[in-house]
Amino acid sequence: MKRTLRLAMAGGGEGAFIGAIHRAAAALDGDWRLVAGAFSSDPERNRRSGEMLGIEAARTYASLDALLAAEAALPADERVDAIAIVTPNHLHAPMAIAALEAGFHVFCEKPMALDLEEARLIAAAAARSGRHFALAFTYSGYPLVEEARVRVARGDFGRIRLVQVEYSQGWLSQAIDREGNKQAEWRTDPARAGLGGCLGDIGTHAFHLAEHVSGLKVQELCADVATHVPGRRLDDDVSVLLRLDGGARGTLKATQVAAGDENGLKLRIHGEHGGLEWAQMEPNTLTLRWLDRPTEIIRAGGPGLAESTLRRLRTPAGHPEGYIEAFANLYHAFALRILDSAETASFPSVEVGLRTMGFVESVIANAASDTKWTKLSAE
Amino acid sequence: MKRTLRLAMAGGGEGAFIGAIHRAAAALDGDWRLVAGAFSSDPERNRRSGEMLGIEAARTYASLDALLAAEAALPADERVDAIAIVTPNHLHAPMAIAALEAGFHVFCEKPMALDLEEARLIAAAAARSGRHFALAFTYSGYPLVEEARVRVARGDFGRIRLVQVEYSQGWLSQAIDREGNKQAEWRTDPARAGLGGCLGDIGTHAFHLAEHVSGLKVQELCADVATHVPGRRLDDDVSVLLRLDGGARGTLKATQVAAGDENGLKLRIHGEHGGLEWAQMEPNTLTLRWLDRPTEIIRAGGPGLAESTLRRLRTPAGHPEGYIEAFANLYHAFALRILDSAETASFPSVEVGLRTMGFVESVIANAASDTKWTKLSAE
Amino acid sequence: MKRTLRLAMAGGGEGAFIGAIHRAAAALDGDWRLVAGAFSSDPERNRRSGEMLGIEAARTYASLDALLAAEAALPADERVDAIAIVTPNHLHAPMAIAALEAGFHVFCEKPMALDLEEARLIAAAAARSGRHFALAFTYSGYPLVEEARVRVARGDFGRIRLVQVEYSQGWLSQAIDREGNKQAEWRTDPARAGLGGCLGDIGTHAFHLAEHVSGLKVQELCADVATHVPGRRLDDDVSVLLRLDGGARGTLKATQVAAGDENGLKLRIHGEHGGLEWAQMEPNTLTLRWLDRPTEIIRAGGPGLAESTLRRLRTPAGHPEGYIEAFANLYHAFALRILDSAETASFPSVEVGLRTMGFVESVIANAASDTKWTKLSAE
Amino acid sequence: MKRTLRLAMAGGGEGAFIGAIHRAAAALDGDWRLVAGAFSSDPERNRRSGEMLGIEAARTYASLDALLAAEAALPADERVDAIAIVTPNHLHAPMAIAALEAGFHVFCEKPMALDLEEARLIAAAAARSGRHFALAFTYSGYPLVEEARVRVARGDFGRIRLVQVEYSQGWLSQAIDREGNKQAEWRTDPARAGLGGCLGDIGTHAFHLAEHVSGLKVQELCADVATHVPGRRLDDDVSVLLRLDGGARGTLKATQVAAGDENGLKLRIHGEHGGLEWAQMEPNTLTLRWLDRPTEIIRAGGPGLAESTLRRLRTPAGHPEGYIEAFANLYHAFALRILDSAETASFPSVEVGLRTMGFVESVIANAASDTKWTKLSAE
Repeated sequence: MKRTLRLAMAGGGEGAFIGAIHRAAAALDGDWRLVAGAFSSDPERNRRSGEMLGIEAARTYASLDALLAAEAALPADERVDAIAIVTPNHLHAPMAIAALEAGFHVFCEKPMALDLEEARLIAAAAARSGRHFALAFTYSGYPLVEEARVRVARGDFGRIRLVQVEYSQGWLSQAIDREGNKQAEWRTDPARAGLGGCLGDIGTHAFHLAEHVSGLKVQELCADVATHVPGRRLDDDVSVLLRLDGGARGTLKATQVAAGDENGLKLRIHGEHGGLEWAQMEPNTLTLRWLDRPTEIIRAGGPGLAESTLRRLRTPAGHPEGYIEAFANLYHAFALRILDSAETASFPSVEVGLRTMGFVESVIANAASDTKWTKLSAE
Repeated sequence: MKRTLRLAMAGGGEGAFIGAIHRAAAALDGDWRLVAGAFSSDPERNRRSGEMLGIEAARTYASLDALLAAEAALPADERVDAIAIVTPNHLHAPMAIAALEAGFHVFCEKPMALDLEEARLIAAAAARSGRHFALAFTYSGYPLVEEARVRVARGDFGRIRLVQVEYSQGWLSQAIDREGNKQAEWRTDPARAGLGGCLGDIGTHAFHLAEHVSGLKVQELCADVATHVPGRRLDDDVSVLLRLDGGARGTLKATQVAAGDENGLKLRIHGEHGGLEWAQMEPNTLTLRWLDRPTEIIRAGGPGLAESTLRRLRTPAGHPEGYIEAFANLYHAFALRILDSAETASFPSVEVGLRTMGFVESVIANAASDTKWTKLSAE
Repeated sequence: MKRTLRLAMAGGGEGAFIGAIHRAAAALDGDWRLVAGAFSSDPERNRRSGEMLGIEAARTYASLDALLAAEAALPADERVDAIAIVTPNHLHAPMAIAALEAGFHVFCEKPMALDLEEARLIAAAAARSGRHFALAFTYSGYPLVEEARVRVARGDFGRIRLVQVEYSQGWLSQAIDREGNKQAEWRTDPARAGLGGCLGDIGTHAFHLAEHVSGLKVQELCADVATHVPGRRLDDDVSVLLRLDGGARGTLKATQVAAGDENGLKLRIHGEHGGLEWAQMEPNTLTLRWLDRPTEIIRAGGPGLAESTLRRLRTPAGHPEGYIEAFANLYHAFALRILDSAETASFPSVEVGLRTMGFVESVIANAASDTKWTKLSAE
Repeated sequence: MKRTLRLAMAGGGEGAFIGAIHRAAAALDGDWRLVAGAFSSDPERNRRSGEMLGIEAARTYASLDALLAAEAALPADERVDAIAIVTPNHLHAPMAIAALEAGFHVFCEKPMALDLEEARLIAAAAARSGRHFALAFTYSGYPLVEEARVRVARGDFGRIRLVQVEYSQGWLSQAIDREGNKQAEWRTDPARAGLGGCLGDIGTHAFHLAEHVSGLKVQELCADVATHVPGRRLDDDVSVLLRLDGGARGTLKATQVAAGDENGLKLRIHGEHGGLEWAQMEPNTLTLRWLDRPTEIIRAGGPGLAESTLRRLRTPAGHPEGYIEAFANLYHAFALRILDSAETASFPSVEVGLRTMGFVESVIANAASDTKWTKLSAE
């Protein structure tokens, strides 16, 4: 009989956006059951969150440390299998390391850590523990992102020349970080967010998507980093020129002050014979353009998809799947890997975390320099 | 503490499309847990389905009758709360009536029954039993369908003049119903599908959406019903002229032979001052057009939404929600109604079932007649 | 040396929309030069219009009769070649017949006449005179309408089953016809517009496009005709079920009370293996959908176009051509036909006029009847 | 009576794309009549071109010098008013200077010249001569580009923070410049194209559009310039970071190796409260996004347009105007300026030419340097 895995959550109490998404994503395919949590450092809020989520009072813990200790002491067929870490960034490293060292698998929010150094510590802990570590680079979970990746990898477009990625939001266009918006507040606080503001929050998503789909590594970059809202302590707008493997050139734009924009993550890649375009806000369409024949519209559920794309789909063509389903694809792969270490189950892991944190450090370093190009290193 | 409701499923074994959707929809918000089922009349297939779904062998029943008998005998805090019926149409009435009479709530696939007469029997059983009965007219679960309904109801467009609805699929363009496609086979078999083919399968969706959003009832109709694929025994293409309350005129087009079309359900409504357009394949956008000012794009999660729309949303703007989320909104409302009879929890119920079956009968009657207009009656 | 043809215009004085379009369309390719006109029955307005257009005072005539008499008396290398008739509908027949009988070619606005009887008189005059007669069914001039026609004709989609056409405008949503809007006023006056309001004005465009591209004739129809704006004397909203050659079924919707809609002419055709969609408001894109392979986007100027499509294009891909260019394609074909009677030069002519007027009469007759189907006859 | 201006053309013989566009654009509104030309340096081709265009043999000149001499000798009411220069770039400066010095107005293709130094010589000649000089930065002629400019200028979006412009073509993805494509050949030849390849050909368009609509000047820039096709002598791909007035940041991407892309010029501008998006391939739509209210779709011909936008429109909403119409708006403004020096008639002139050539020089200089930022100077 199929075994449903047991999940615990660190953070994600009432009012938090991303915790609820993790819960829905984990539940969607019946792989996971949320049975424990340390949802908030505020005891009353923690208690209410547990109740609202139908968690037993005994497994609604006051802290992650308490959770790890108590769960580790439970019999193997009762204790949780993995910890979902959905806190602000500064807690990712201490929590992930503690959870891994206590023997639990970890599904961690992005960015991985405050900086590359912290990320390396997580990576080392994961290696030592032999536990699995997944990072919520959700957008790689979309079926048509997989399709795009496959088509580039098998050479449909020829050698890749251009990679253009952008992630455009507008919700930080005004100083809401100083007007009580909790989500905005910690994301613009260097102590809790890390080196990058917009850069760490969404620039890393854009960077990961570009490398993931193109199959190319960024070799060097040149960046302009701005803070448009007066008084803000971290960047809210980033533009980067990229030089990738094999002479490919790229641009990356990430901004949170494009007033009126929602969640505009968009990728374009061109090779010698054609190119592709994918936009997160209409994720079930992948556009392929060609030098010498008509544009093709690849659709989720439509004809011609790769096997690995089909495995990420739940509905027939024309029945849209969205963000939660993409997220659920990561949780599903994470479950498969835990259950049988299947190599076909793929999710963003330690290496992605190190690359993305290396990207953040390189951009910050370049932006402070008069020299044009900075090598990206994530060793 | 929040109580998770217990769900049993009739039908929906391996390979069935819609059973898996019901399960994901029920799981998404943590309201329901699937704990029992009679998934298939084939014993081996039933057993494998139960295992794959993590259902205890003891609650994987050989038939719905066995399930109803055994579950009714369980203590109240163990037995299932509701039965999801996801079988071909001819089983809806006998199963729904049995389940209601055994004291269970029922969430039933559409169309409600083979014909209006059967639908009336279900309605009577629901009334007698005092149990809740929900119908899977999924599309009314989309947040922006609710937004559209609210805006029409509060008079934003003035008196409604035009209602145009279409549901265009292409998957039955060839004779796959005689080539082993199970989904196609029963849908084109009068004994299992009922009076209408395309008409019952998707025409009812279109009809429901039109009445639901416009707030108007169809008074009379004039139809052309065709079967384009040779040898097919039920219609695969329907066109209907509608006359609605208050002089509004409408058109309804439902087809399953629009080769290449996916799941094109689209609604347009116009009143004196403006109109709206919503398309299921891009469900997070609602377009409003106006006589005297620019077109507005209303977005799921964006500014200006009604309270009842916001309750149907899980993600911020730009993070697309899809078909499963719309479905989950029906399961969530169904759970709320069961738990506290909240009047704000709304889902398609008996009245919708009767109207839609009345529509099917009226179209079939009109298509067989030389007289232009047929009154729609669902009494 | 290329000969530039000489054009005269009847109607189209200051403030008239369609006269200016005819002039731009005729000028665009350098085929025509406007050298004479009877622009208005108001002498002062006529004089001002001629001046504004750079027409010599001597060739700015008080009436079409005066124009025909004077121009016919000029030497062949000075007199006009053709008359563009851009007046309200009730003048089309008398003017066209007079012009043809005076030996001039005629380019006439649509609909052809007030009713089928008048249309037959024009047809007879054209036949007797041996002069060419073109009708401004502009939309057939778009390059990708030609491409669509070619692809249907050569069987790309298999036998055609579905034809869906709609023409949705909103500008007559209020009673502007009684508030001084000249365009609205005559179009809703039976004495000047003819049998149909919306039906004649844009329903005929939709009908023509459907027959032109599908290559099928409408055999019988069933219509609902409404007038939504109180006090209006002609229809403003029409819905029609169509039965076409070979068992194809169709729907035609034309309305001028879809408040907020602009000029939404849209055609969809489906056959056994796939279908096409074209929308006038984005005319440089033709969408092809297929049962078994990805959707293709055919673009004006892009790869894979038919020879007859390429002849209708002026710019490379991505440089949009629009309504005036489509119109100019009709004037260009008209010029080619006059100059050398080339069979490849195609424009809507007498037969199209008779079919479209037959359509108007059949719809009006059916709408007044309780019998469902009316045969369309244009003999 | 309206005076039709007389135009001569230098270049633009048979087979040339842009010459035909100039002729159509000049003809469209009846402002201009082409009466003379030096279409080709090949005598036979020149003769055939004149014949095909209906130009008298006497005014089909062997060279521009011959044309200038002969026309200058004609009486004022016969000689041409202006010269359209539609040759490769290296002839712009000598021809424009000669024409201006001979007393003719000049409408010149872009880029203005081979480099900034040449551009300054033209500017000086224009100043000395008192003649008007227009540059074919066509895209500023679109009605909704004007609307965008007006809305930024009047402060609808607050202070501007972001300017993103891109111009993406794919037609130079392969080495067609060495395989007989004449258009490609001269554009990749430094002697005929100038300093920039893609940069001069379309990068200048993007740059001009960004400055024109934002109303901001680029202060400094940082560029990456690539040549992807082996053996090509000029750039085919350019990415630029921009710093504009008032702290605004920008990105500019121009490429001719985005295989499959057509003519993707797209502009986005964001300010404190909202932003706009315009794309040349769907030019009749302008999208406005807002922090706190729904997105608005501004449409050519729709409600709410500025007076200066309306003057650039010929058709009602929903009747698409395109590239030739945008071009015609420049020729119309040029005619108005010649006829009455109206200040409201606006077209890209000497200042635009100098800025765009300054941009080209700055990008080339920066790309060759290790220093990050280069000031843009066009003095």
